[in-house]
Amino acid sequence: MADQFVADLNCDMGEGYGAWNMGNDAAIMPFVSSVNIACGFHAGDPAIMRKTVKLALQHAVFIGAHPGLPDIQGFGRRDMHITAEEAYEMVVYQIGALSAFVKAEGGTLHHVKPHGALYNMAATKPSLADAIAEAIYKVDPSLVLYGLSGSELIRSGQKAGLQVANEVFADRTYQPDGTLTSRKSPGALITNHQESLAQVLKMVKEGKVVSQQGTEVAIQADTICIHGDGTSAFTFAEQIYHTFQKENIRFK
Amino acid sequence: MADQFVADLNCDMGEGYGAWNMGNDAAIMPFVSSVNIACGFHAGDPAIMRKTVKLALQHAVFIGAHPGLPDIQGFGRRDMHITAEEAYEMVVYQIGALSAFVKAEGGTLHHVKPHGALYNMAATKPSLADAIAEAIYKVDPSLVLYGLSGSELIRSGQKAGLQVANEVFADRTYQPDGTLTSRKSPGALITNHQESLAQVLKMVKEGKVVSQQGTEVAIQADTICIHGDGTSAFTFAEQIYHTFQKENIRFK
Amino acid sequence: MADQFVADLNCDMGEGYGAWNMGNDAAIMPFVSSVNIACGFHAGDPAIMRKTVKLALQHAVFIGAHPGLPDIQGFGRRDMHITAEEAYEMVVYQIGALSAFVKAEGGTLHHVKPHGALYNMAATKPSLADAIAEAIYKVDPSLVLYGLSGSELIRSGQKAGLQVANEVFADRTYQPDGTLTSRKSPGALITNHQESLAQVLKMVKEGKVVSQQGTEVAIQADTICIHGDGTSAFTFAEQIYHTFQKENIRFK
Amino acid sequence: MADQFVADLNCDMGEGYGAWNMGNDAAIMPFVSSVNIACGFHAGDPAIMRKTVKLALQHAVFIGAHPGLPDIQGFGRRDMHITAEEAYEMVVYQIGALSAFVKAEGGTLHHVKPHGALYNMAATKPSLADAIAEAIYKVDPSLVLYGLSGSELIRSGQKAGLQVANEVFADRTYQPDGTLTSRKSPGALITNHQESLAQVLKMVKEGKVVSQQGTEVAIQADTICIHGDGTSAFTFAEQIYHTFQKENIRFK
Repeated sequence: MADQFVADLNCDMGEGYGAWNMGNDAAIMPFVSSVNIACGFHAGDPAIMRKTVKLALQHAVFIGAHPGLPDIQGFGRRDMHITAEEAYEMVVYQIGALSAFVKAEGGTLHHVKPHGALYNMAATKPSLADAIAEAIYKVDPSLVLYGLSGSELIRSGQKAGLQVANEVFADRTYQPDGTLTSRKSPGALITNHQESLAQVLKMVKEGKVVSQQGTEVAIQADTICIHGDGTSAFTFAEQIYHTFQKENIRFK
Repeated sequence: MADQFVADLNCDMGEGYGAWNMGNDAAIMPFVSSVNIACGFHAGDPAIMRKTVKLALQHAVFIGAHPGLPDIQGFGRRDMHITAEEAYEMVVYQIGALSAFVKAEGGTLHHVKPHGALYNMAATKPSLADAIAEAIYKVDPSLVLYGLSGSELIRSGQKAGLQVANEVFADRTYQPDGTLTSRKSPGALITNHQESLAQVLKMVKEGKVVSQQGTEVAIQADTICIHGDGTSAFTFAEQIYHTFQKENIRFK
Repeated sequence: MADQFVADLNCDMGEGYGAWNMGNDAAIMPFVSSVNIACGFHAGDPAIMRKTVKLALQHAVFIGAHPGLPDIQGFGRRDMHITAEEAYEMVVYQIGALSAFVKAEGGTLHHVKPHGALYNMAATKPSLADAIAEAIYKVDPSLVLYGLSGSELIRSGQKAGLQVANEVFADRTYQPDGTLTSRKSPGALITNHQESLAQVLKMVKEGKVVSQQGTEVAIQADTICIHGDGTSAFTFAEQIYHTFQKENIRFK
Repeated sequence: MADQFVADLNCDMGEGYGAWNMGNDAAIMPFVSSVNIACGFHAGDPAIMRKTVKLALQHAVFIGAHPGLPDIQGFGRRDMHITAEEAYEMVVYQIGALSAFVKAEGGTLHHVKPHGALYNMAATKPSLADAIAEAIYKVDPSLVLYGLSGSELIRSGQKAGLQVANEVFADRTYQPDGTLTSRKSPGALITNHQESLAQVLKMVKEGKVVSQQGTEVAIQADTICIHGDGTSAFTFAEQIYHTFQKENIRFK
C-alpha cells in the first residue's frame, strides 16, 4: 500500500483595507487547508476580518492570525527597528483582535503566523523570535506557531512550549544551507507552476529540496505557503490541490 | 443597623498614545473599583494597554474595554456616521485586543464601556446600541455592559441578555427627564467637589438626582464615572473614596 | 457658423493607497481635461501623489487637490462632525502637500475640489463651506474652487473672491430644484451611457437638465465629473471625449 | 573691539498630537531664533501646525519644516528601511503641508530639518541624504537644510545646491572624530547646564568641541539644537539666551 502523506497548504488572506481589495480569497479558499488573516496593522480592517473569518469557517479551514508591523502604507514589508517588547505587544494585540471575530462566529483560532518584515526579522533575531513566541503562548498556549522552516522563530516557539509548523514556500528557491534565496538575488522566485509543484511534492514526500545550486538539502515541510495575489494564484492553488489528491497527500 | 450600600466607581484609563501621556492612572487607581482601558482606536496603543492592564491587576480593580471610534486625532469625540455593522465590527475588534492583554497577564475581562462619541450615539440610536450589545454578547456573554443610565444602550444590553451597569456622572448636571445637560448648555459641568459628592451620595443611597431645574428625578446608579484627567482628578477620587468608607458604601 | 462650447471634464485620481490600487488613471487621463488628486487623508499617499502628478503633467491636464476627511478606512465617505476650524486646517494641509509635488515636477496647481463627505457637507453647511473657501484663498487666491453646482460651497467661494467651477455629474439624476437625487433613493444613478451623454450635452449646450420628474431645470455646468472606478469608466470617458469633439465642444 | 559672533538656536516644536500635548512651545519660543515644526507624520496635526506657525510668526523666528517617518506611535524614532524614493516623497509631502500653513499666515518657510530616525539615517546613508536634499531643492531651492554637522546630509545638501546649516547639540557629548556619542553609550547626554553652556560657547566662538575623551575637535556650528521637552528645557533656553547676549553673540 502506498504511503500516505499529510500536508497543510496555507495562504495569506483578508489583505484588503477599507475600500481596497487584494487577492481573491473566495476563489482560493476551497483549495487550502489553513488561512492567515491580516489583523489591521499591515492590512485588514474590522469589516474585512469579520468577512474573512466567516468565509474560512464556511470552508472549514484552519484560521490563523497574521500579525504585522504597524505600517499600513508599507504593507508591513519595511523592516522597523522595534524592541522585543514592542514585538510582544503588537502580536498580543493583533491575536486578540482576530480571535474575537473567530469567537463571535463560533470558531476557534488555530495558529499564528507573523507577516512580512516581522516574519523575516523573527526568522533571524532571537530576541524578537522569543518575544513573539511568548506573546502567543501567553494569549493561548494551544495556538500553533507558523514560522520559516528551521528558523529562530521555530526554535523560540519550541522553547516556549508551543506547537510549531515549519513553513516552506512553493514559489521560492533555496540555498544549499536551507535558507531562502534572497528576493534581491536572481532566480529567487519560481515562476513555472510545474517546477513549483515538483518542489512541493519533494518537500512533502521526501523532506528534501533541490537548492538553486543543484544540491539536495533536508528541509522540514509542515506547511506550504502559496500566495493569494497575482493573476495565476487561483490556478496554482487548484493545481496543487488536485496533485495532492492524486499523490495521496491529504490535508491536515 | 445602618443600611449598607454598594457602589462602583469607574474611571477611563490608558488614554495616552505613543510618546504622549494623559491622565494620572497610577495615582487614581487605588481609589476606584473599575477601569475602562482605551483600545487603540481613539487612544491607547499596545504598550500602554499592557502597562495599564498590569497596573489594574495589581490593584485588583475590574478591567473593562473602552472601545472608541477610529479617530485618534479627534480622540474619538467627533460623531462619525457609521453603520450598525461598522459599530459591531469595531467593538468586537477592540474587545478582543484588550482581552488578549488581560488574558496574557492572567486576569479576566469584566466589562465594556463605549467611549466618547460612540457612547453618546449609542445612548440614543437603537441600531448602534443593538449592534454594540450584540458585539459584546458574541465575544463573551458574561461581560457587563456599562452605558448611560436609562439609555438605549442599556435597553439593548438587557434585550441581548447582557448584565448591564447604569452609569451616572459625578461632575455632570441632569435634566428633569433624567438625561444629562448637554455640554453646550451652561451649567453642564459641576466644578465644585462638594456638590459632586453630594450628587453622588444621593444617587447611590436614594436612587435620585436633583435636576438642574431643582426637581428630584429617579435615576439608576449602578456605576459612577469620575474623570481621570484634569488637575484635581486625583484629589476628587481620593475624596469620594474616603466619603464612601465613612458613609458605609462599599465597593463592588 | 455653429456655436462653440467649452467644457471641462474632471475625474478623481490617485485614489490608491500603499499596496492597493484603485481606478485606471493611465487609461482615463487622455480623455479628461482636469484631475482631482487625493492627498493622503481618505486615499493617496506620497508615492501615489507623485506618480499621479507626473502622469497629469505628461497629459497636460489641469491638476487639482482633492482633500478629504481624515478617514482612510472609510475612504472619506463617512460624515464626521468636524468644526469649521478643523475643515480649514485639513484643507490647508492637503492643498500644501499636493502642491509641493506639483511644484517639484515643474507644474502649477490649478484647482481644489473637496472629496466625498467633505464635499457633501460643504454643499449645505455654510460654516464648513466658508472655512474651506478661506483655506483655499489663504494658501493661493488664484486656485479655482470646484463645488456642487449652485451649492453653499460655490457661494462661499464667490464670497471669498475665488474663481469657482459649478460641478455637474454625468451619471447622477437631478431633482426639480436642481439638487442631486439622493444616493439612497431609487434612480439616483444613471447606468446607461447614452442617457449620461445626453444629459451632459444638454447641460453643456443649454445649461439645462431634465429632472427625474421630467421637468427642465436650469443648471450651471462649468465642469463635469466622471467617475474613474468601475469597469466601464474608461469606455465612457472615451465616448464622452469623442462626442465632445463631434459636437464642437472643446476642452478648457 | 570684541569679536561679534552669530549663532542660531533651534528647537523642535509643535510635537503634540490631537488631544495630547508635548513640550512648552510658548515658553521657549522667546529664547530661540528658529523652530522646526512637526508635519503630521511622527507628531503634529493640522490644528497644532497652524497654531505653532502663528506663534512662531508672532515671535519672528525662522520657521522650518521638521519632516519625520510615518510612525506616529513610535514618534518617528524607530529606523524604518525605506527606499530613497520613499524618503524623497515623504519629505516633499511634509514640506508642502507645513509651507501651506506658513503661506496662509503670511510668512515664509525658511528651512527643513529631518526628524529623529530620518535625521539619523540621513546622516550616514548617502542615498537617503541625496533624496532628502533633492526633495527640498525641488520644492524650493531657497530653503536651508539643517543637518548633523559634517554629516552625509550636509554634503548632499551642498552637492544639490542648497544652503546648509551644520547642527550641533548643546546637551550631547562628542567623540574624537567629531561624531555624537551614541545614546546607548554612557555619558552620551550632558545633564549639567553649565557644561552644556560651556560646550555651546566653545563651539560658537572657537569652532571646537572637547570630546568625551578630552581631545579638542574642530566642529562647524551653524545652528545649535536645544530640546523643548523635559522639565528644565525652558530654564536652559533662557540661560543660553542671556549668556549669548552677555557674550556678544547675536542671533541670526
